[in-house]
Amino acid sequence: MSDQPERLPPGIANAIDYERLAPQVLPQGHHAYIAGGSGDDVTLRANRAAFGRWAIVPRLLRDVRGGHSRLTLGGMALAHPFLLAPVAHGRLAHPQAERATARAAQATGTCLVASTLTSTTLEEIAASAGPSRCFQLYLQENRIHTLDLLRRAETAGYHAIVLTLDAHLQLPSRSALASGFVMPRECIAANLASYPQSSVPAPALDAGESRIFQGAMRHAPTWDDLRWLMQSTRLPVWAKGVAHPDDARRLQDAGAAGLIVSNHGGRGLDGSPATLATLPGVRAAVALGVAHMIQLLTEELHATMAQAGCATLADITPDHLTAALPC
Amino acid sequence: MSDQPERLPPGIANAIDYERLAPQVLPQGHHAYIAGGSGDDVTLRANRAAFGRWAIVPRLLRDVRGGHSRLTLGGMALAHPFLLAPVAHGRLAHPQAERATARAAQATGTCLVASTLTSTTLEEIAASAGPSRCFQLYLQENRIHTLDLLRRAETAGYHAIVLTLDAHLQLPSRSALASGFVMPRECIAANLASYPQSSVPAPALDAGESRIFQGAMRHAPTWDDLRWLMQSTRLPVWAKGVAHPDDARRLQDAGAAGLIVSNHGGRGLDGSPATLATLPGVRAAVALGVAHMIQLLTEELHATMAQAGCATLADITPDHLTAALPC
Amino acid sequence: MSDQPERLPPGIANAIDYERLAPQVLPQGHHAYIAGGSGDDVTLRANRAAFGRWAIVPRLLRDVRGGHSRLTLGGMALAHPFLLAPVAHGRLAHPQAERATARAAQATGTCLVASTLTSTTLEEIAASAGPSRCFQLYLQENRIHTLDLLRRAETAGYHAIVLTLDAHLQLPSRSALASGFVMPRECIAANLASYPQSSVPAPALDAGESRIFQGAMRHAPTWDDLRWLMQSTRLPVWAKGVAHPDDARRLQDAGAAGLIVSNHGGRGLDGSPATLATLPGVRAAVALGVAHMIQLLTEELHATMAQAGCATLADITPDHLTAALPC
Amino acid sequence: MSDQPERLPPGIANAIDYERLAPQVLPQGHHAYIAGGSGDDVTLRANRAAFGRWAIVPRLLRDVRGGHSRLTLGGMALAHPFLLAPVAHGRLAHPQAERATARAAQATGTCLVASTLTSTTLEEIAASAGPSRCFQLYLQENRIHTLDLLRRAETAGYHAIVLTLDAHLQLPSRSALASGFVMPRECIAANLASYPQSSVPAPALDAGESRIFQGAMRHAPTWDDLRWLMQSTRLPVWAKGVAHPDDARRLQDAGAAGLIVSNHGGRGLDGSPATLATLPGVRAAVALGVAHMIQLLTEELHATMAQAGCATLADITPDHLTAALPC
Repeated sequence: MSDQPERLPPGIANAIDYERLAPQVLPQGHHAYIAGGSGDDVTLRANRAAFGRWAIVPRLLRDVRGGHSRLTLGGMALAHPFLLAPVAHGRLAHPQAERATARAAQATGTCLVASTLTSTTLEEIAASAGPSRCFQLYLQENRIHTLDLLRRAETAGYHAIVLTLDAHLQLPSRSALASGFVMPRECIAANLASYPQSSVPAPALDAGESRIFQGAMRHAPTWDDLRWLMQSTRLPVWAKGVAHPDDARRLQDAGAAGLIVSNHGGRGLDGSPATLATLPGVRAAVALGVAHMIQLLTEELHATMAQAGCATLADITPDHLTAALPC
Repeated sequence: MSDQPERLPPGIANAIDYERLAPQVLPQGHHAYIAGGSGDDVTLRANRAAFGRWAIVPRLLRDVRGGHSRLTLGGMALAHPFLLAPVAHGRLAHPQAERATARAAQATGTCLVASTLTSTTLEEIAASAGPSRCFQLYLQENRIHTLDLLRRAETAGYHAIVLTLDAHLQLPSRSALASGFVMPRECIAANLASYPQSSVPAPALDAGESRIFQGAMRHAPTWDDLRWLMQSTRLPVWAKGVAHPDDARRLQDAGAAGLIVSNHGGRGLDGSPATLATLPGVRAAVALGVAHMIQLLTEELHATMAQAGCATLADITPDHLTAALPC
Repeated sequence: MSDQPERLPPGIANAIDYERLAPQVLPQGHHAYIAGGSGDDVTLRANRAAFGRWAIVPRLLRDVRGGHSRLTLGGMALAHPFLLAPVAHGRLAHPQAERATARAAQATGTCLVASTLTSTTLEEIAASAGPSRCFQLYLQENRIHTLDLLRRAETAGYHAIVLTLDAHLQLPSRSALASGFVMPRECIAANLASYPQSSVPAPALDAGESRIFQGAMRHAPTWDDLRWLMQSTRLPVWAKGVAHPDDARRLQDAGAAGLIVSNHGGRGLDGSPATLATLPGVRAAVALGVAHMIQLLTEELHATMAQAGCATLADITPDHLTAALPC
Repeated sequence: MSDQPERLPPGIANAIDYERLAPQVLPQGHHAYIAGGSGDDVTLRANRAAFGRWAIVPRLLRDVRGGHSRLTLGGMALAHPFLLAPVAHGRLAHPQAERATARAAQATGTCLVASTLTSTTLEEIAASAGPSRCFQLYLQENRIHTLDLLRRAETAGYHAIVLTLDAHLQLPSRSALASGFVMPRECIAANLASYPQSSVPAPALDAGESRIFQGAMRHAPTWDDLRWLMQSTRLPVWAKGVAHPDDARRLQDAGAAGLIVSNHGGRGLDGSPATLATLPGVRAAVALGVAHMIQLLTEELHATMAQAGCATLADITPDHLTAALPC
């Protein structure tokens, strides 16, 4: 792994330090929006707290000199099992956030998952990224637009479609609301800029109709949409947002190439259960930081593996975990 | 659902915001009395904390476009399962509190349960309320007065009698005591104003007699009183304050038309177990707020149902709940 | 129960208010010594927190008009099951503390347990107390002195000997140490004032001997001492400080007339388990307060019994308790 | 046990008071480094909190007048079961820290475990220490240096080799990092000063190689190293850092003379489980304090044994422990 860049922010020793630095470089409202979850942030807090329930049992005297954290995932050769989760509106953090993040992913052998709602087009991101990249898809109201996004992702060399299933309805967090945050006008979804707005305005609701069911959810994806999507692309489709084992089984039967257990980082249904499998959101403000953070995460992984006596990812077993006693 | 009124207080995004606004519009003592429970508020806190023990599991790809939260309860067609719990002394919050609350209930298809101890007569409330309304009854020392209340409730078109069973003895909360709150003279129980005070003063207690057992509890309702009540009215009688399964069974056998699991919102026996089934008390100061709060609660319900993949109340099953891990 | 005295301190609504008043009327060091436990006060805190693990299930519609909390205990007719635990050095709180407490016990039908280490003699306390009184005994180094204490307690009409078994070694709490508290010279153990100090000074410890085992514990009571004590008095002997079921069985077999589960109010071994059975220490500064506190405790008991649907102590069953959910 | 020295710091009543005194006598960075663990100090906090999960059940009326805490451990006669854990860089606390600690151990019959990384040579420490002493060994990159350390420890009369197995990789705590602490130049590892630095510089890492696995861990001890070590010394070898029962069994089979369950005081893998068996680190600044702290710990042990009714260490059984209820 190459030397660290020279112009890193001072005082960064662990990956989590970038999160603590964020309020210093972001406007308050931007930070509240990015750092918040939804509602009262119950799920956001639960996501982190869940890690406190487990402890790692060190094993002794094992030879870990040949150790590494390499793996192959969906046909992609990765240096480590950390993926960069899709993040909307990167411009909120920095005008170059998404291109810089893509370069950082390339430099560190990291798989990048580009969001439908990036401030930079998927083609521009692909030009900066390394070979390991996926495209996160939100189904569009107009299937012609969805098909166009699929064609573009295929052409730009994305390896897979990551279909988000659990966040058609995103309620802001109370802390973001309290900050008075509104999305800046310059934060457009670059991928969708060329598609005309729907010529059919949202229908007025009749008395007794629901702003949720007959409003926001009228275009939420269904099992039929998933089948149509899989028939419409040659790329494998991963399902993101899985929480219930029955849904997991049905998605597998339906042909999903991968399942991502996630609660949208606590930004979906507040009150949904914690997941241990979601990566911390990408919150750093500058490109050096992204590469550095991935490097730090990888070294923290290597250090933990080494101390736990695991030379490769395959050496990590449930036997290394024990319940942490409540304090 | 109609547009929101124009003059809502600012900064209200969730139903709970109304509770946080309350100290700004109420005198301190009034707020302490309304917001407090009893004793050290142990049960009051437990009521809320109990919700933290459960998480809702999102389900994916279900078609919820026809979703709603309508239900029929006790013959009443309701837009949602939130009822307005009986609240005594509405004048403490606002001179028009009870009439405005009744109009809000009508506007939002909500069932109103009017308290025996309102500052407005049950007839006045009925004139403002929609068709879905019940009358909460405290048994009076003089059965003639109780019978008169029943006749008046029947005449005023109430659908059911909600008999409160668990709050004959209400000890104030320590925080309300510390605030120096005393009930203002203008807060009279309008429904009872026409009944003469008992001509028999409370008997002096002999040595060894108890201010509780031989004092406050000497007119508390018994199973005999419940039988008499049911024979004395053509309205169905719901029992409010049920906590023990044996009592629930016996009340059902005795012919109660409904059971309301409740600990009087933490205002009865401090130290009794939490209930998940009690609605947050009505604490907002103005009428717009009541309708708005019900609207917000309904939309929060719709949003949660939609994210959980439930199109109707009947779709909600225990399978959607999982224990939240302690943090 | 008679009217409340006129000169009670203001702001007292619950028994626990007396505890919160104590720092206002006691010198800081005195309060730290009285309110503290031992060591880091772990057991002291656990004693109180243990109550939070239980909730009381209200029962409905029971006829409790004949309710009371009377009981017979060890041949004594008591108005309620609260006993006044033995407290040493009452003069720390007030010069008249022990006589006033005795009068309060008499006025409220309360059993008083007088400590060996009171600032007032057991004869003076007996003169103020009602018929329900016990004498708490610490075994003296010289058995002649112990025998004399027994004779005096028998003569003064105490009903039972309460032998403290778990507090021969009492380490002060760190908070009391930090306050700089030292026992004032005027706080003498009045009962022991007539006994000459041991003519044999404490033996110097050899190298390797322990200030605990060969020092403080060299006169701690043993099973032989208990047997000797029982043969030496016609009064029943209750054992105080029981924590382990095996000790409880052995004490019962040995003829103990009563067992008091206690950890010396958290003033013995810090780190011993919580008990639910110990009464809050007597901390109020004036006599009115003692009677008032007992009256408040009794009314709180009656209110809880009434709300729980229990007319007598015999009606209280385990079915009224349920585990409080952790919050 | 001899009288306490005259010049102890004021306000010291319990062993833990020395820890609270430490920030007053140490530079902030030194204290942060000494008091911190690793990472976010999760394991450091868990180590202490784990004690809160257990309570000690007092037993009554046992004769403990012959009580003591003596034991024989690895052929060493000890006055109590507290050993002084190996501590690196004693000069950080005081220039005489290690010699003074050795004298304190001698005065109190305490076993001293001298670290490889002391600021004073093992020979100088041996000259100040009593007969109960062990040498903590970190395997050196060059086996010739390890062999020399073994010869020196044998010659200096150490009783056993304590081989640390779990701390080849030590990441600093975030609090120490935040304090800006860097090891002062005068804090050299005196035992290693005579060994030439490795003439072979650390190899440059190829792309894809890990700073952890191919870097810091390339000389971490393996089972082969343990076998070699045992064949290379006539001293018994104790294994320090055991956490997993399988490792414990394998170490026993391999001939380890003792097993020390430890997580390096929370300074190794942050997130590893709590141990109850590690002694609080030696943090006091002056020699009087060390002896005094050991004396205090011993008396606290004696007091707990006495109150629990245990005359000797052999009397302590699992029956004396009970789970402390969560509060």
